[in-house]
Amino acid sequence: MSSICAIATASGGALAVIRVSGEDAISIVDSVCSKSIENLPANTVTYTHIKDENNSVVDEVLVSIFRAPHSYTGENSVEISCHGSTYIINKVLALLVEHGCRMALPGEYTQRAFLNGKMDLSQAEAVADLIASTNQASHHVAMSQMRGNISTTLSKLREQLLHLTTLLELELDFADHEELEFADRTELLELTKKIEAHIEKLTLTFQTGQALKLGIPVAIVGKTNVGKSTLLNRLLKDDRAIVSDIHGTTRDTIEDTITIRGVQFRFIDTAGLRQTTDEVEQIGIQRTYAAIEKARIVLWLFDQEPTEDEFFDMQSRCEGKKLLVIQNKVDLIDANYNLSSINSKLIKLSAKHGTNIEQLEQAIYEAANIPALNDSDTIVTNARHYEALCNALTSLQRVEQGLSSNLPCDLIAEDLRLVLSSLGEITGGTITSQETLNNIFKNFCVGK
Amino acid sequence: MSSICAIATASGGALAVIRVSGEDAISIVDSVCSKSIENLPANTVTYTHIKDENNSVVDEVLVSIFRAPHSYTGENSVEISCHGSTYIINKVLALLVEHGCRMALPGEYTQRAFLNGKMDLSQAEAVADLIASTNQASHHVAMSQMRGNISTTLSKLREQLLHLTTLLELELDFADHEELEFADRTELLELTKKIEAHIEKLTLTFQTGQALKLGIPVAIVGKTNVGKSTLLNRLLKDDRAIVSDIHGTTRDTIEDTITIRGVQFRFIDTAGLRQTTDEVEQIGIQRTYAAIEKARIVLWLFDQEPTEDEFFDMQSRCEGKKLLVIQNKVDLIDANYNLSSINSKLIKLSAKHGTNIEQLEQAIYEAANIPALNDSDTIVTNARHYEALCNALTSLQRVEQGLSSNLPCDLIAEDLRLVLSSLGEITGGTITSQETLNNIFKNFCVGK
Repeated sequence: MSSICAIATASGGALAVIRVSGEDAISIVDSVCSKSIENLPANTVTYTHIKDENNSVVDEVLVSIFRAPHSYTGENSVEISCHGSTYIINKVLALLVEHGCRMALPGEYTQRAFLNGKMDLSQAEAVADLIASTNQASHHVAMSQMRGNISTTLSKLREQLLHLTTLLELELDFADHEELEFADRTELLELTKKIEAHIEKLTLTFQTGQALKLGIPVAIVGKTNVGKSTLLNRLLKDDRAIVSDIHGTTRDTIEDTITIRGVQFRFIDTAGLRQTTDEVEQIGIQRTYAAIEKARIVLWLFDQEPTEDEFFDMQSRCEGKKLLVIQNKVDLIDANYNLSSINSKLIKLSAKHGTNIEQLEQAIYEAANIPALNDSDTIVTNARHYEALCNALTSLQRVEQGLSSNLPCDLIAEDLRLVLSSLGEITGGTITSQETLNNIFKNFCVGK
Repeated sequence: MSSICAIATASGGALAVIRVSGEDAISIVDSVCSKSIENLPANTVTYTHIKDENNSVVDEVLVSIFRAPHSYTGENSVEISCHGSTYIINKVLALLVEHGCRMALPGEYTQRAFLNGKMDLSQAEAVADLIASTNQASHHVAMSQMRGNISTTLSKLREQLLHLTTLLELELDFADHEELEFADRTELLELTKKIEAHIEKLTLTFQTGQALKLGIPVAIVGKTNVGKSTLLNRLLKDDRAIVSDIHGTTRDTIEDTITIRGVQFRFIDTAGLRQTTDEVEQIGIQRTYAAIEKARIVLWLFDQEPTEDEFFDMQSRCEGKKLLVIQNKVDLIDANYNLSSINSKLIKLSAKHGTNIEQLEQAIYEAANIPALNDSDTIVTNARHYEALCNALTSLQRVEQGLSSNLPCDLIAEDLRLVLSSLGEITGGTITSQETLNNIFKNFCVGK
């Protein structure tokens, strides 16, 4: 395959890393270096200069050499660590292209790693999730997947499905012996149901997986001037203070998220939450409804006792979601509302003074109902995997129906093959189209 | 010295590089790795895992090992190449800090390189300029400086100054022999003038150096609706089209600059240039004057013949600057104005249709009057160096005066010492205060 190059780090730092991979990677880099690197041993780092067409020094660099198959892609690879100047980065890339590289497509290094058998497709996809991970929970699920826990789970399912196929073929062989058939069908049915339950359990982790990956959507609703913005700012500020304590980096790009015990909560951005009072009342209400719709957890904030109608309305709108009922401005008014009707505990706080914010954070964390994450748990976070699991489940349900209704074995076997094929899509074993692969990798960063 | 750690790449990429430097760098990294790296040979790259306090995998990483004195800082150093997740980066840094590192200050790696004699101060400062370089010219001056051309120039000057000192001491020894004195003074005076001329030449490169480093300031002025914004957009667009062709990166951060033949031109951002017609006339004029004031090149754009008064006014405002007189909308009106009075050639173009834009670019480049850059040329780009050179020059002029007016040798020698001390500040030889060093390095990026 042709040799590819790309910057693997974000631009704007002190250093940048340019990655080159392909059969000719080492000789191409060699041709732009001031000293020969062609015969250097694998896994060594060498200080050298990159020279341009006029033999001027473009940069003083460190060059790391990897030889096939012992590299990320499984190909010959070179990593050039240069200064992070945009001029230098572009010049080095231009020189590499002049000497025979082409610019890498998004995710092309990882795609090559997959094609060269260094990882399966579910692991490859986890690499992108790992890079995007901003908190402990999303990191955990991505890391587990990259280290193969979906692959292991699916390989076990595959074994059971192959066993089922074998039994089905056995039944086919003994099709004439009517007395044998019934016993086998029961066993087959049981096994099918067991696999079905397992796949269904996996599909059920998807909602949690998505929430962990993207952050759990939270809406803050309530009337004007009850302190919604103050509460949001308080939650954000508390979190930032803790975070900046450790690493001192800015969090500008991940606005309006807070992390509680490693789980990220994402506040739904509705202009409605920050409306002024002169907005037409109806628009404000519609926006609140829209925010509730998208949320998994709703923080309902008030400073005056809501009417019973308001209680019931909110409760019905929040069906299937977690509703936290919050009395703000506890420093001004300390009232006890009768909340038994909506089956919720009242959280009393002062957003302005920070009173009882920890209690609210604890309540938010509990409302998320995140299972304890163990290394062995498999959580589905990828929509493509979820779709494939759902397809597998549908086919498996047809297998079950077929077994129950005494359908001929060959028809059942056909559905079983569909199950195996759907599961195979997840790890990539049954994907043969380049277009499908390109679609999977197109959202990767360049340089990975 | 204590071991320090920092991220050396910008966050947001596929990969990030974390740098660790100090006596215990290797053993500290060893304590967070899943396999022992302590005894690995220098200049090798190893694949390993970073583990957290619960023995969970934080990331699969590549670790490069450098041993003192053969590293950038001259100390034991490790570079950890991990995935570019903010969570991972912060977690790895937190683990390193827990195991005995402290977070590095801006430029602290380069400061250590200076303190350990890996480079002098002018070279160290060039590292920051190199990282910030966005075009061929700024890259060229930074690279030459980093590779020591200021150091070499100053070391030659120092030799000549030391020779002067020796001669002065010789004169002191023969102070009684009146007949000898005169001959020596002439020789001393000649040598002094020669060194003076050399230092003065260096100080004169500063304006060019600053222009190359920061971009040459250009103002586009003219009446409302003559097409100033259209011309600016045309120049920017043409440049971007060429640039994006090669590397496909965004240039959002370096708005309103164009690069012609490797030299960067920076358009002065005056709100006035984009004013609407309903602005008070006087404010518009003041803003135009302010833009001209800051510019080195002024593009004066019109579509109707200016009056003689306007010509003279513009010419007097642009004294000491390059004025380019441009007739826009040449597709609508093609007139020949009498420009002999302002000693300028008329450039006729259509900003809208792109007619003659290359001719304008050529004129802008020529107006910049950039000397051809050779590797051996020394160009001063650093304000601190410029100040030190000016101080050296002032002291040297006192030496010259002293020699001319037959001042006693010991008084002249005192001024000569000041010259040497000022020049020594540039390479750092005569800087002893930590505060001065911190000031020099405080504008570096973290991680370099």
